[in-house]
Amino acid sequence: VSFDRLAILDLLAEYGGRLDHGDYEAWLRLFAAPCRYNVMPRENHERGLPVGLISCNTRAALEDRIEALQQANKFNIHSDRHLIGLPRVIAEADGGIEVEAPFTVCQTDQEGETRLFATGLYRLRLTLAAGSLRIGDMLVLLDTFAVPSLLATPL
Amino acid sequence: VSFDRLAILDLLAEYGGRLDHGDYEAWLRLFAAPCRYNVMPRENHERGLPVGLISCNTRAALEDRIEALQQANKFNIHSDRHLIGLPRVIAEADGGIEVEAPFTVCQTDQEGETRLFATGLYRLRLTLAAGSLRIGDMLVLLDTFAVPSLLATPL
Amino acid sequence: VSFDRLAILDLLAEYGGRLDHGDYEAWLRLFAAPCRYNVMPRENHERGLPVGLISCNTRAALEDRIEALQQANKFNIHSDRHLIGLPRVIAEADGGIEVEAPFTVCQTDQEGETRLFATGLYRLRLTLAAGSLRIGDMLVLLDTFAVPSLLATPL
Repeated sequence: VSFDRLAILDLLAEYGGRLDHGDYEAWLRLFAAPCRYNVMPRENHERGLPVGLISCNTRAALEDRIEALQQANKFNIHSDRHLIGLPRVIAEADGGIEVEAPFTVCQTDQEGETRLFATGLYRLRLTLAAGSLRIGDMLVLLDTFAVPSLLATPL
Repeated sequence: VSFDRLAILDLLAEYGGRLDHGDYEAWLRLFAAPCRYNVMPRENHERGLPVGLISCNTRAALEDRIEALQQANKFNIHSDRHLIGLPRVIAEADGGIEVEAPFTVCQTDQEGETRLFATGLYRLRLTLAAGSLRIGDMLVLLDTFAVPSLLATPL
Repeated sequence: VSFDRLAILDLLAEYGGRLDHGDYEAWLRLFAAPCRYNVMPRENHERGLPVGLISCNTRAALEDRIEALQQANKFNIHSDRHLIGLPRVIAEADGGIEVEAPFTVCQTDQEGETRLFATGLYRLRLTLAAGSLRIGDMLVLLDTFAVPSLLATPL
């Protein structure tokens, strides 16, 4: 299997764009059928502590999470803006490709104040499903353990 | 008409780079002959309020704006730094391509303090003119309605 | 010599990724054998003041610098996150290519606070060495003259 490099850029652009639009169903479609999505502080990961802020180790868990989010979003009082950096290909094997990309998320609240909300590193394992690139496994490593009000939104 | 994906990346890089260099004439050349350039808070756009912070619905209006800017820039006391994220292709039709890209602008003032100035989303309609990709229509959606001293510079 | 555009994106992704991982030896391998690496405020550069915050005009100087950094890093109490924007090709000649790319660096300290640390512009002259793209000359232009604790880390 060979991976189209531009397709990786497209996937990352879709990932951030769909989240910022609050279009969580389209975001969910970026994931492969069996998939995992975990968010944790970088420090926990480095120390081998598997404790995550979001832990979805099955597709069903991720779908449940998104459904809960869509309820919560009725009271959503901020907007997100993702900037995702250029991806690094870490490894390519067994029909999958491992990619890292840095990101920042800025949030704007109801008063119109915009601030830097989170920075970190995406680690993705991408697979081809029916000719399309999909996220099989995604680990969001946050640079800080102190992310306020994280549960309101995926990163 | 088929669009070269790398040419879209190049256009966005030129867009931000020319603005940050204060090279407004080269920035203007990125636009097609008939063109529109509008800047407005995202909220206004979503509510159908057409009130923009910058509204240039003709090429002449945009050129006037740039000329005024070049005068104002003699007293310019800050510098901008654009970061433009990976573009999403939204639609491709009729010899044009619609693209979205997130952005952040950081500003540095005369005291040397750098701060996050604005975040938002670019919506562009690109066309081919004499073999080169040009901006036919650009909408800059700001995440906040509260952008201070906006008029000093395009985003 | 023709340059693969995706290879330029890869090089920039590697540049930021290796720094953020603190993997300075891999970062050093991104540079050509004879190379220069300078960091200075944009203002100094524009005024023709050659005074830099980091000035490595030989490979040996850069290697010394990195070795010193690795010592200092034992006491490193922050982490960096680079976001590097899309590159602009400025010129291509004589087996080299000149590229500019904007960047932001966010830093997270031991208390878990993340803040915007620096913004600026990379100016790189890239060369091909044994089929791989390498940095022959790099100038990091900082938007501010007031970067605190700069010496702790390359940008």
